[in-house]
Amino acid sequence: MKAIVLHGAQDLRIEERPDPGPGPGQVLVAIEKGGICGSDLHYFQDGRIGAFRVREPMILGHEISGRVAALGAGVEGLAEGQPVAVSPSRPCGACRYCREGMPNQCPNMRFYGSAMPFPHIQGAFADLLVAEPEQCVPTDGLTSAEAAMAEPLAVVLHAASLAGRLLGRRVLVTGCGPIGLLAILVARAAGAAEIVATDITAFTLAKAGALGASETINVREAPDGLNRFEADKGHFDVLFECSGVAAALAPAVPALRPGAVIVQLGLGGDMTLPLQAMTVKELILRGSFRFHSEFRLAVEMMRTGRLEVVPLVTHVRPMTDAGAAFTLAADRNEAIKVHLAFG
Amino acid sequence: MKAIVLHGAQDLRIEERPDPGPGPGQVLVAIEKGGICGSDLHYFQDGRIGAFRVREPMILGHEISGRVAALGAGVEGLAEGQPVAVSPSRPCGACRYCREGMPNQCPNMRFYGSAMPFPHIQGAFADLLVAEPEQCVPTDGLTSAEAAMAEPLAVVLHAASLAGRLLGRRVLVTGCGPIGLLAILVARAAGAAEIVATDITAFTLAKAGALGASETINVREAPDGLNRFEADKGHFDVLFECSGVAAALAPAVPALRPGAVIVQLGLGGDMTLPLQAMTVKELILRGSFRFHSEFRLAVEMMRTGRLEVVPLVTHVRPMTDAGAAFTLAADRNEAIKVHLAFG
Amino acid sequence: MKAIVLHGAQDLRIEERPDPGPGPGQVLVAIEKGGICGSDLHYFQDGRIGAFRVREPMILGHEISGRVAALGAGVEGLAEGQPVAVSPSRPCGACRYCREGMPNQCPNMRFYGSAMPFPHIQGAFADLLVAEPEQCVPTDGLTSAEAAMAEPLAVVLHAASLAGRLLGRRVLVTGCGPIGLLAILVARAAGAAEIVATDITAFTLAKAGALGASETINVREAPDGLNRFEADKGHFDVLFECSGVAAALAPAVPALRPGAVIVQLGLGGDMTLPLQAMTVKELILRGSFRFHSEFRLAVEMMRTGRLEVVPLVTHVRPMTDAGAAFTLAADRNEAIKVHLAFG
Amino acid sequence: MKAIVLHGAQDLRIEERPDPGPGPGQVLVAIEKGGICGSDLHYFQDGRIGAFRVREPMILGHEISGRVAALGAGVEGLAEGQPVAVSPSRPCGACRYCREGMPNQCPNMRFYGSAMPFPHIQGAFADLLVAEPEQCVPTDGLTSAEAAMAEPLAVVLHAASLAGRLLGRRVLVTGCGPIGLLAILVARAAGAAEIVATDITAFTLAKAGALGASETINVREAPDGLNRFEADKGHFDVLFECSGVAAALAPAVPALRPGAVIVQLGLGGDMTLPLQAMTVKELILRGSFRFHSEFRLAVEMMRTGRLEVVPLVTHVRPMTDAGAAFTLAADRNEAIKVHLAFG
Repeated sequence: MKAIVLHGAQDLRIEERPDPGPGPGQVLVAIEKGGICGSDLHYFQDGRIGAFRVREPMILGHEISGRVAALGAGVEGLAEGQPVAVSPSRPCGACRYCREGMPNQCPNMRFYGSAMPFPHIQGAFADLLVAEPEQCVPTDGLTSAEAAMAEPLAVVLHAASLAGRLLGRRVLVTGCGPIGLLAILVARAAGAAEIVATDITAFTLAKAGALGASETINVREAPDGLNRFEADKGHFDVLFECSGVAAALAPAVPALRPGAVIVQLGLGGDMTLPLQAMTVKELILRGSFRFHSEFRLAVEMMRTGRLEVVPLVTHVRPMTDAGAAFTLAADRNEAIKVHLAFG
Repeated sequence: MKAIVLHGAQDLRIEERPDPGPGPGQVLVAIEKGGICGSDLHYFQDGRIGAFRVREPMILGHEISGRVAALGAGVEGLAEGQPVAVSPSRPCGACRYCREGMPNQCPNMRFYGSAMPFPHIQGAFADLLVAEPEQCVPTDGLTSAEAAMAEPLAVVLHAASLAGRLLGRRVLVTGCGPIGLLAILVARAAGAAEIVATDITAFTLAKAGALGASETINVREAPDGLNRFEADKGHFDVLFECSGVAAALAPAVPALRPGAVIVQLGLGGDMTLPLQAMTVKELILRGSFRFHSEFRLAVEMMRTGRLEVVPLVTHVRPMTDAGAAFTLAADRNEAIKVHLAFG
Repeated sequence: MKAIVLHGAQDLRIEERPDPGPGPGQVLVAIEKGGICGSDLHYFQDGRIGAFRVREPMILGHEISGRVAALGAGVEGLAEGQPVAVSPSRPCGACRYCREGMPNQCPNMRFYGSAMPFPHIQGAFADLLVAEPEQCVPTDGLTSAEAAMAEPLAVVLHAASLAGRLLGRRVLVTGCGPIGLLAILVARAAGAAEIVATDITAFTLAKAGALGASETINVREAPDGLNRFEADKGHFDVLFECSGVAAALAPAVPALRPGAVIVQLGLGGDMTLPLQAMTVKELILRGSFRFHSEFRLAVEMMRTGRLEVVPLVTHVRPMTDAGAAFTLAADRNEAIKVHLAFG
Repeated sequence: MKAIVLHGAQDLRIEERPDPGPGPGQVLVAIEKGGICGSDLHYFQDGRIGAFRVREPMILGHEISGRVAALGAGVEGLAEGQPVAVSPSRPCGACRYCREGMPNQCPNMRFYGSAMPFPHIQGAFADLLVAEPEQCVPTDGLTSAEAAMAEPLAVVLHAASLAGRLLGRRVLVTGCGPIGLLAILVARAAGAAEIVATDITAFTLAKAGALGASETINVREAPDGLNRFEADKGHFDVLFECSGVAAALAPAVPALRPGAVIVQLGLGGDMTLPLQAMTVKELILRGSFRFHSEFRLAVEMMRTGRLEVVPLVTHVRPMTDAGAAFTLAADRNEAIKVHLAFG
């Protein structure tokens, strides 16, 4: 089989690897689609994401869908040929965080394509993948593209669960990459009364509008675009911060109501924040990191038609063109989510 | 003007009353539609709702829409002829509950058409009504029927705010009268993953299905219809109890997950509950009573198309046929929401 | 060794059983003290607690302390002779409730001395007990009596965690048996501003006053004793209902503030509740059932002097006098917590 | 009467002002004690606190106690000579924040001794003060020093209400000035299982230990003193950040458990925070600003003996020595809370 292996910054190679087979209780999945995530891009461009640094060859990828190719002995509830989304979240199930309902904080987590522990956790951008049955969620009725969106959708559903009530609330989204756009979709699905989105490219903001944002603001062209929401101590109840840059978060603070919740999804290292202003307004800043049970929910929400993610997938490229696909995926004037086609 | 006045159980009269005029800072509203609520029906049928007993002639009604007929001196933000929904919620604004953000608990509340204090608070089923400007929410773009649904919708939005997160949750609704059906609509709008509804008439359950219930169960015909949700200690995360009878609530308990929230909307006097079973599962039972700020939100949610309430209005009758309309409204094989037309 | 075995209602026998030995990874505990719980009393008196019915001989008991008598191979962190409190809570650790942080809801729970599954889960009133290391919490510095109070204290700490904030709150406790008295202690330790307690015996109420209740009310002698708290829609923010009888809960409702939390600890089968009054005030009724992580916390709170439970232990009796001890424990004019001495 | 008036940075003057008299419905208070707050010190030292800049002569002070000197017509519930604590919090009671239970966010707030609006809100460091009856809380049984501590205690009680449950929690306090020390007292009173405090002076840390901190760390001498709490992803459930400097907050992040709450009390302008680390651990950062209803609670907690604040008051100086007293109050090697004596 072929796999997409990163050897260092800008050094992405398509390599042959031996075909794996499922052990007892395991599932062999023939991968169909793999979505390029912002973290894949960071590894590719810089060889690192903050403290997570690539120190040995690592297969990238963790947003994947495919079909069951073979079942190991004893696996029930899945059938050969069945379409599945495969969750990259593999907590240990035994530590105190797993026992306290916080599996996303498991210190023994083996999340696909992560350079954090060493040896690294290999990713899933390959023609074949051996997974545990509980990772494989049937996606009958969904396209492989939709199924590969389950992972980023799960990220946003987890973030939404930290935001408190969304029904009837006024929501601001800063940063309209795939995560920000999914935040718009989810806020819409959760009954938000108003959704305003900011970004710095016309392309992403047009998508934001098409997906349900009540209003979009290009903060590069109109740096003061949020000012009119500052009256009466602010307007928004919730901010989904999806840019990871202080330049997006800081100017949003005056537009937030006292007591508003900022859900921080973007990961951008140290940031200088207007902490006095945030304190005086008693804002609540909550970090959101990955997901676990929300993966299954993401598939269900798509299957029952609560959310329509297809418009986010702007391009599909064969996995053999991974290099060009990664370059494309980094261009927010051209692309939102780029999918690689496997098999 | 004409008004619908209750003199006692079964004694409903259409009476002439002098036309009122707005004082300074007040608004005269020409009523267009008035929805018959369950509480109106109780007063009509029994002359009371539990401890609330009609002891003097009382104009009924509190679900109303109309047009601004005249503005008292100094009123701004409204225009003659403008369509409005009129909130019946009139807290004092000065007591400790008003100050603590619980205006629906205001002991000085003057809610339209309520027999609780004596002299009673007169209702709004009349051709003309003098209201405060903050009660009058513009409904441009909505029909008068939609505008008259703002009140029951506000009741359910308030209940939803007590239910915790609804996005992705499994919701059970017991009782599919107007409040139960609105609970289905609101749960849908809030992104519930699954909505199961129970009632005892085919008519209401057909409506429930049409409005978005994933499944409906006639618990008269299939008393064990909820049994299959009992596996693995229960299935539902949230129950909106809209029937007010223990016969609906009690059998739902085994179908609720440990830690599930029961939002009690139905008002039915004393009830015998399976408290041991509820305690062992650590269920959370929360009463929900009326609303306040949610009235304005209800109008906004309709205006932005988040909810479509029109299918609930099954009949419109001239206010001069109030008696027949009340009888019709009580028949759950025929009617959901019956509107009276004024003016 | 000797064990206290219930064969049916009123049929309690002291029986010889073979001495157990610890397997690999297990701990043999020489029991020193065992507290008689209300559930032990129900089993003894009626052969059942609601749906939990004794159908085969069952060793009673789950409030226990002792010393490590022997360690199986591979056990670390404990030493022979070390004093320990032994948690009776044994969830499976693998089911969805265990994974979601709700181990007290584990359907595979093997809680000591419980007649719920069949064969029953045998209890811990015996001279020797084999336990898992994670059940054994070191109690150096505590007396064996204090250590045996860890279990009921854990019950109340769990309940307190469901009550929301207690600091500065007004707390009502109905029922002053061991659980109610511990609720007073815990509310005190959590900074409650005021604690009022009700019961029907002078003996328990005197204890309540001694343990920190601001005021006690004998509702048998003064059935209207709570009336003066009804002004301005009620006084208390939190009710710990520790009696399990509707006769205690119902009259407390008018004394609770709108939005108050009732934590239901008492287990008393079906109850007829004033649900309309509870709904109109938007009260929140939460069931509280057992505990898990709170057991370790209970020991820590005693070791750091946050709570002083010794005054609750009114009697100690040799385990060979179990029958008389059970009779004594049921007498709320004489006893609060009765301990059995083993070994 | 005499008043302490700030004319600009370092320019503090004792000035004669005409004696005020109470209007109808008002209360004249003879001030006895006034505590010097960190904000008074900032105004004195720099003429500003961040964006709050002194632009005209302003009487300082807002932590005050005294005795009722005269009652305006119609005031009930207070008596001449009665000792009182006077709350500096004066929200309008009519805006949306006041109505939503957030009076501390009232945009029309007239908090004593605040340079924010212009003309400034004059403070209370004067021999006589006219106040509204609802500001005056009887302190019978408390000393005037205790009564003057009600204000900073209210600040911390408000912060504690934002921290979630404290019973049984592990609490870290960074910064052991008066607010940090009160946070230790309040955490203790709320049943925290463990309280660790950090600061940079031996004097404050000795106080912290005496007031109930389980452990104190001088982070100037031992910059790595928190490292041992980093194991297993962190130790503390709650951080009360009372220093207002990033140098205190940032190194605490690795010592916090995933999902821990940081309550930010210190006000220190912009701060550079380790936002990636905070996000990955899903920390919750909540600003806490002033108080309102907690003032009355603070007095009650002192009157019922729940808290003992006397040890925080290290010095009393006559108001005529205000300059020296302010200099003393700024020295964390000598003083915690310095009180001025009036009258």
